[in-house]
Amino acid sequence: MDVLLVVRRPDGGFTTKMTEWEAVMRAHVRVDTDELSAFLTAVFVARGFKADDAAFIADSLIDADRHGIASHGVQRMAMYDHKLRHGMIDPAARATLVRDDRAGAVLDGHSGMGQLVSRDAMRLAIAKAREHGIGIVAVRDSNHFGTAGFYARMAADEGLIGWASTNSNPLTVPTHSGTPALGSNPIAFAVGRGDDRIVYDAATSTVSLGKIEVLEKIGEPIPGDWAVNDDGSVEHDAARAMDNVRATPRTGGLTPLGGAGETNAGYKGYGLALVVEILTGVLSGGLLSLDMKGQHICHCFAAIDPAVFGGADAVADRVADLARRLRSLPSVDGHDVLVPGDKERAAARVNRTDVPIDQATFDQLAVIARRTGVAALHAGT
Amino acid sequence: MDVLLVVRRPDGGFTTKMTEWEAVMRAHVRVDTDELSAFLTAVFVARGFKADDAAFIADSLIDADRHGIASHGVQRMAMYDHKLRHGMIDPAARATLVRDDRAGAVLDGHSGMGQLVSRDAMRLAIAKAREHGIGIVAVRDSNHFGTAGFYARMAADEGLIGWASTNSNPLTVPTHSGTPALGSNPIAFAVGRGDDRIVYDAATSTVSLGKIEVLEKIGEPIPGDWAVNDDGSVEHDAARAMDNVRATPRTGGLTPLGGAGETNAGYKGYGLALVVEILTGVLSGGLLSLDMKGQHICHCFAAIDPAVFGGADAVADRVADLARRLRSLPSVDGHDVLVPGDKERAAARVNRTDVPIDQATFDQLAVIARRTGVAALHAGT
Repeated sequence: MDVLLVVRRPDGGFTTKMTEWEAVMRAHVRVDTDELSAFLTAVFVARGFKADDAAFIADSLIDADRHGIASHGVQRMAMYDHKLRHGMIDPAARATLVRDDRAGAVLDGHSGMGQLVSRDAMRLAIAKAREHGIGIVAVRDSNHFGTAGFYARMAADEGLIGWASTNSNPLTVPTHSGTPALGSNPIAFAVGRGDDRIVYDAATSTVSLGKIEVLEKIGEPIPGDWAVNDDGSVEHDAARAMDNVRATPRTGGLTPLGGAGETNAGYKGYGLALVVEILTGVLSGGLLSLDMKGQHICHCFAAIDPAVFGGADAVADRVADLARRLRSLPSVDGHDVLVPGDKERAAARVNRTDVPIDQATFDQLAVIARRTGVAALHAGT
Repeated sequence: MDVLLVVRRPDGGFTTKMTEWEAVMRAHVRVDTDELSAFLTAVFVARGFKADDAAFIADSLIDADRHGIASHGVQRMAMYDHKLRHGMIDPAARATLVRDDRAGAVLDGHSGMGQLVSRDAMRLAIAKAREHGIGIVAVRDSNHFGTAGFYARMAADEGLIGWASTNSNPLTVPTHSGTPALGSNPIAFAVGRGDDRIVYDAATSTVSLGKIEVLEKIGEPIPGDWAVNDDGSVEHDAARAMDNVRATPRTGGLTPLGGAGETNAGYKGYGLALVVEILTGVLSGGLLSLDMKGQHICHCFAAIDPAVFGGADAVADRVADLARRLRSLPSVDGHDVLVPGDKERAAARVNRTDVPIDQATFDQLAVIARRTGVAALHAGT
């Protein structure tokens, strides 16, 4: 979910460069995080949430912006507010246990807010891990939960190892197909502590749709084999790729990690997306990505107690040692060798007390403020 | 681990085509599986294994050949025999429990045969899943275990959901590095029954090294971005790519799934390889791929009891429904849309009573027969 800067070279090719995510925000404002939290909390309270739940959702969104994952942060408020106004998300819903069987459970989210359903599900997975050594909780009938990594980090914050996945609207095409049939189906995994924590969080498609949306906004082509049309041809025009997924039925989708066809093993990304679909849609008994229209999303959360493997400190020490050895490898291209989580931590250091919000999102927040009767937000910059 | 046929087009480009794996076996013989099992069992008994252990190893190798995964089948006998003769594998070693804590455990393989250590570890994971709902077993100081999918299928054969991973010699380069630092680190996952079972089994590198070895043998170039030199440049010459990993220290390696650099999200494959490294080398307290020289390999096995999620039949029914819906999607290129496991099942239908063995491997088996005093194998064709 890193933001990508795409540069057209003089020879007509493309160069991509990972940057501080502000780089693609042509016009943005910086907003104080305390003020932003109070504002978003007030909006969610106005939409029917209890104060502590509203604050939790607000802070989970700000957490994404702080970590440079703007696509899953406050930018999503327009979508959430739309779903709340149209009854697609029920602010009063509470997840209930469908099954509770030793180390495992199934929760029904009753179309509640994905962040709250997922918080409760991950807390249950953590409690089960503490009791049994490992816990796994599948969830059905939830909603968008933000970033998967947020929930994996919840487990790591308590000294455990965390896993989180979700299905979604159909976006990823199976190998040899041009029909989106699986979600972006991310896998998140977190282990360790401090600056050496590993936080892996990635869609099993080549990129998440948000990256193509960013390219469409800034009028740049897609530099890699990220999207296909429904005839299987690779689409490098970001606007056309977005049109494909906005059409009903969709006229194209995202390639699985590894790309279109078999040359660079796209069947592996397809298979991983399918594994996530089984852990989420199948195990929960909920809706498959194939049948999804923005609602009734399924998740899966797992936690492992490192006590089984020598204790939290011993595991974290070994993770830190591995991370440092990987970072110390010589670079072949001038970009540092990193471990998953490093970029997001670097962003969080920049965004400690305020976060950048793109102007379009800031304007949307003003509309939401008027609709909900909440005092408008002030930009710091 | 499918075998790939690479065709140079008249325009100088390359076309790849997945085929029955016999297609790349320019010279092969077919061998009766009962006879092959008896022969391999006798060889392993001669090398110091108990009869039932010897038969288990033999059948696990034949199982790979039967499923079309020749790279991990009888072709590996020369490597195993070399390690047995040089004391790198101890035929008398038995895995012992280092830790046994609720749903989790750590085993020490004491440099035993990877297949036997892994069989015992997966049986323990299955027993723990039956007791706790889910079980996870990390293993250190083992050896090559064959295909990861074999152990994931062990769980599925008992109506559970299976996961298996292993680390290995350093092969995969982290993003922005040209230094192999992670193994091919496969993920295997199996769920369901019969012809609709999903069996995902894939290295987190773009391809396993075996595919490049096959291209070297048949003198064909690498059609995708599978390998890099130590300066980060992509290497399409299969012989040079193999030379890179034969050198000490290695002068290049495999790209992570997603390829070199960031354009097609190679950092995702790198991250997945790192997740596997943590589940195997870190959780077991064993050797990391970074430090590995063909021995002391680490694995991780997990099993989930589907009773938690509605029962084996309900889960298998939902998996079958999903598999059938995916297979029914229109193809964009004339190749059927499949689910992971379909190709291997198709191969197994062809290889029910005999399996193809390439001539070089057949000749190596004759050498091993002489060395161990076992009567030589007969070719059926």
